[in-house]
Order: sequence, then structure tokens, then C-alpha cells
Amino acid sequence: MPPPAPNVVTMGEPAGIGGELTVRAWAHHRAQLQPFFALDDPVRLSEAAKACRLTIDIAVIDEPAGAIDAFKDALPIIPLTADTKATMGKPGTSTAKAVLESIERAVAYTTGGDAAAMVTNPIQKETLYDAGFGFPGHTEYLADLVGGGMRPVMMLAGPSLKVVPLTVHVPLRKALDQLTTDAIVEQGTLVVDALRYDYGIDRPRLAVAGLNPHAGENGKLGNEEIDIIIPAAAALKETGAEIIGPIPPDALFTPRARTRYDAALCMYHDQALIPVKALDFDHAVNVTLGLPIVRTSPDHGTALDIAGKGLADPSSLVSALKMATEISACRQARRAG
Amino acid sequence: MPPPAPNVVTMGEPAGIGGELTVRAWAHHRAQLQPFFALDDPVRLSEAAKACRLTIDIAVIDEPAGAIDAFKDALPIIPLTADTKATMGKPGTSTAKAVLESIERAVAYTTGGDAAAMVTNPIQKETLYDAGFGFPGHTEYLADLVGGGMRPVMMLAGPSLKVVPLTVHVPLRKALDQLTTDAIVEQGTLVVDALRYDYGIDRPRLAVAGLNPHAGENGKLGNEEIDIIIPAAAALKETGAEIIGPIPPDALFTPRARTRYDAALCMYHDQALIPVKALDFDHAVNVTLGLPIVRTSPDHGTALDIAGKGLADPSSLVSALKMATEISACRQARRAG
Repeated sequence: MPPPAPNVVTMGEPAGIGGELTVRAWAHHRAQLQPFFALDDPVRLSEAAKACRLTIDIAVIDEPAGAIDAFKDALPIIPLTADTKATMGKPGTSTAKAVLESIERAVAYTTGGDAAAMVTNPIQKETLYDAGFGFPGHTEYLADLVGGGMRPVMMLAGPSLKVVPLTVHVPLRKALDQLTTDAIVEQGTLVVDALRYDYGIDRPRLAVAGLNPHAGENGKLGNEEIDIIIPAAAALKETGAEIIGPIPPDALFTPRARTRYDAALCMYHDQALIPVKALDFDHAVNVTLGLPIVRTSPDHGTALDIAGKGLADPSSLVSALKMATEISACRQARRAG
Repeated sequence: MPPPAPNVVTMGEPAGIGGELTVRAWAHHRAQLQPFFALDDPVRLSEAAKACRLTIDIAVIDEPAGAIDAFKDALPIIPLTADTKATMGKPGTSTAKAVLESIERAVAYTTGGDAAAMVTNPIQKETLYDAGFGFPGHTEYLADLVGGGMRPVMMLAGPSLKVVPLTVHVPLRKALDQLTTDAIVEQGTLVVDALRYDYGIDRPRLAVAGLNPHAGENGKLGNEEIDIIIPAAAALKETGAEIIGPIPPDALFTPRARTRYDAALCMYHDQALIPVKALDFDHAVNVTLGLPIVRTSPDHGTALDIAGKGLADPSSLVSALKMATEISACRQARRAG
């Protein structure tokens, strides 16, 4: 069997901490990581290394396979062609092209099998909007690039728990309006598939959260459990997974409860993100489910306030790299078997 | 100065784990606790001790002061007069009178100064409703007994954080409807007072949570922050406390964020209870703010499924006893000074 393909790390917003994360992940953690290469600018990453007070060797490569041998001694980089020149902490529209070039080429490498998985550094959406970017976020853009009309789903995975919010960037009132049995069944099925095929869990255990305090107490504290969630949980049993719930939201994340499921399907953004950030802040990874390619990213933003200061903590990017490898190895084994 | 009065522990639901908690708290933890007495049934508590495989001495006393000397060698009990006979795990209406007697007498002792604080074992509301109990919960009942038209507020306090939910047992949709600037200012003021006078923090730091994902992103993800929460946070500055927020809900409970405030005012039940139960499950205490008396309780229910089996963990009751002492000492010092 040939060695697995390297992972590809995108540039992200060049005025943010992405470069420092990439450099630090390679400098301090490469011994535990599958080889990766950055789709970035070598000059920019040399400066990021300087900001981190690191002396590193860089290997400019022209195709992903070159990363495998180079990785041990130098940070492999495939250079971008568009302009990456940015003032740290001050994102501008002049680099939007390069941000998108990095993502687009990473998708192409990953779709073509030259990269095993793509790991994306954080972007600054507002700047891309100003430059004419027409997607609500990174993930929707990826789904469009990959094609096939998939509805991607965000999972946050940390050492303590895996959570999937049913809706993401909508006001809480709107999230309540968008809560339907179909949506829960659709996303729940996708999560069960991911646990099975991306994480190798033969009989996945999926917890479904309630919406209301105490999961509604049989209708006394709200009807969504009876009208929407309980029918969805019943329908999800057809996946063959073990389905528990609806569980009272505040009981779902206690240490004991967390031992009873592999992932929790949450009814809105903060129901999922509050516990994972409280418990696993520096180590949670954002995993996109429902794409044919493997894509992970760190669970934080561009951190403009500390960009260029050499303070950025690469823990979440390192976790994202490890999880990308774990998932692509799992998919590979399945294809092979 | 005379020794501080003892704390009083109510019976709670006699078919639940309350008796086992009281007995275990005394048997295993009395060396670290201010003396307390149980308003309970000596026969029932002997049986609870047996269930826990404990041999304990009981001191039947007829007034609270008797607990001080007795406490070291025996569990002091002031007996109830109403019937406490229950089948473990099966609450019935026949004991409702005794449940209420224990609460009412505890309030009387605490109001009169014979007890320093009251610590309440969990009750089973449904059973009390069937027996004609007319309050939504324990806390509202206490407020009524104490009189004065106070609107009590529930704080959950654990080693990692203190949280106060703006609304408690209402459906999530209704909680959104009940979100007003006045409600936030009223409760926030009460929390600031409690931090100052019950916890002795001269310049309290109060974090105000946002409601929507990312605290609304300047109106892009919801308007409640702009219309309701930001004006409330501004008004709360008049308390002299340091007010931060509205903070994005998922950013509010990370380890770093938690160092920046003494308590977090949350916009709905689960926004507060999810993080505190995820982080501090066995050690969180329910504290009632806004009453002239000190009242705490464990942060869990009657656990009917394990009642009578000797499995109940008294950690939360022990934490509630310690916090009751901490708060009443703080109030006492203030009165004295």
C-alpha cells in the first residue's frame, strides 16, 4: 500500500493567527502528526515563525506528494499565486482572492485524492463579503465547491463530547421556528452515519436533546418534545443506532450522562456549543459531516487582537489535524475492507 | 459572642433519597460542618442509616439550641408530628403534610434566629400538588411563608461558577417572551447585592449573557441584545458593580472567561444550568437570593430510582450546608460590623 496522502492546511485570513498556528503545529507537534503541507505564502509563514521566535526550514513544493519526504525536516508549502500581503490584525479585501484560492485548491487536492483531508484555518467572513463572497460561511462554500447538493452539518468534537447543533447561525427565535421532525431525522441520520463510517463505531449511541427545561416535563413546560422531538427520536431508531432522549438539556452533559452516548444532537447552536466550549475549549475540533471529503478546522476564530504577536495556541489546529487523520484512516480502511 | 445557631435540614420527600443524604452528611462530614439538626422522623432516619450500612447515634432534641452540644456525637433531630411513613421510591399524598410541616417549621426557626440557615432536601412537587399544594415550586412556597412579597431568584453555585437564570420553569418560547430590560435589571441588581452582602465581594463582577448565537452579531443574528440586553447592562452599571456583556453564550463559560466574573446572569434556564451541571455536577448548590433568610439546597432531585438503596451521594447536600454557613456568617459579620 502506498503511504497515505498528506493533509492540506489552508491559509485562512492572513491578518489573523492562522500562519502562527500552522508554523507552531509543525514546529512543536510534527512528530505526532501525519505529514501535511500548507497552501500558503512562504514569505508570510517565515514571518509568522519569526513572530513566534522560531527558526524553521521551509520546503517549497509543487505537488502534495512532495510533502511526505520533506515534512520531517521542513514545513512543506505549496505557494499561492494571489496577493497575501496583510497588516496583522487588520483584515482587508485585497487578500480575499488568496483566501479563496487556498480553499479552492485545497478542495481540488482533497477531492482528487492528492490530499487525504483538508484542515482549514479560520477566515474573516466580513472581509470576504466585501470582496463579493456569496456564502453564509466557510462550510457552505465548501459544500458548493464539492458539489452534489449536500447539506453539510457541523459537529464539534472534543475529548469530553461530540455535539451537533441542529441550526447554526440564526437567531434563537428562528431556530425554534426551524425545529422540525424532518430536520432532526435528517441530521440525526447523518450523525449516525458519521459515527459509523468516520469514527468506526459499529453500533453508535446518539443522544437527542430536549428543547425546553426538563425536556418539557410531559408538556407542562412546552410541547416541542411531544410534537416534534419524540417522533423524530422514534424514527431515528430505524438507523439501527441506539437512540436515547429527548434528554433534559441540563442533564445531558453531566460527567455520568456523557458516558452514555457517542454524540449528542442538540436543538440549537448554544445548547451544543456551551458545553463543548466549557469542557473542551482548547481541544475542540469543528468537523464537517455530510461531505464526500474530510474537512476539519480549529474551533476558534482569527483572534485579530493577538495576531502577529507570537501568542497563538495551536492546540485546536493540532487536534483538527489529528482528527482529520483519524477520519480519513477510518474511511480508507472501510474502502479497503 | 454566643456560638452561631445551628443550621436546619428539612426532610424533603420521604420516599426519596433525602434521609440517606442527611445521615451520610452527618456521618461522614460532620467534622467540617457547622452543627445542624434535621426536622425529620428519628425512626425513618435510623432506617436510612441502615440502608447506608451505618450505625449512628441519634439525639432527639426539642429545640434547635440542643443541636450544638449533641452534634459531635449524635445526629440531632427535632421530630415531626405528621405521618412520614412512605414506601421508598413511591411518593404518595399521605406524607404531604409532613413534607410541608418540615418546611414550615424550618422557616419559622430560621426567621426567628433559632436556626442560622435552612437547607432543604429535594421534594416531589407532583405529590404535593395532588395534596392541594398551590405553589409552582419549593422556592415560591418559601417566599410566601417568609412574606413581604419578595420575588426570590435561584442561583446555582459550584466551585467553577455561579449562574442565575432569568426565568426558570417556563417553556423556552415563553422565556423569550418574558425577556425584558426591567427583568434583567431587577434580577441583576439582586445578584449584585447577593455577591456583595452574602459573599462579601466589595466590587462584584457580573457577566450578562447574550441570548442569540454570538450575542446577535450586532443584529445580524437577532435583535434582543440591541433592544433589551445592552440597555439593561448599561442600567446595571448604576449598581457600582463591574458589568460585562452581553457576552456570546458559548464564550461565557470557557475556563478563561470564567475568571473574569463572579456570577453570570443567564437569559434562560438551560443557558445557566447546562454549564454548571457539566462542570460542577456533584458540587453545585441551589441558593435562593432575595429572601431575608438564608436558604440553600442540593442541586438535584429526589432520585426515586435509587432511594432506599444506600447509594445516594451527599456531596451536593454537604456543599449546600457549607454554603449556608458561609452566607450566614457573611451576613452576621455585616450586621456586627
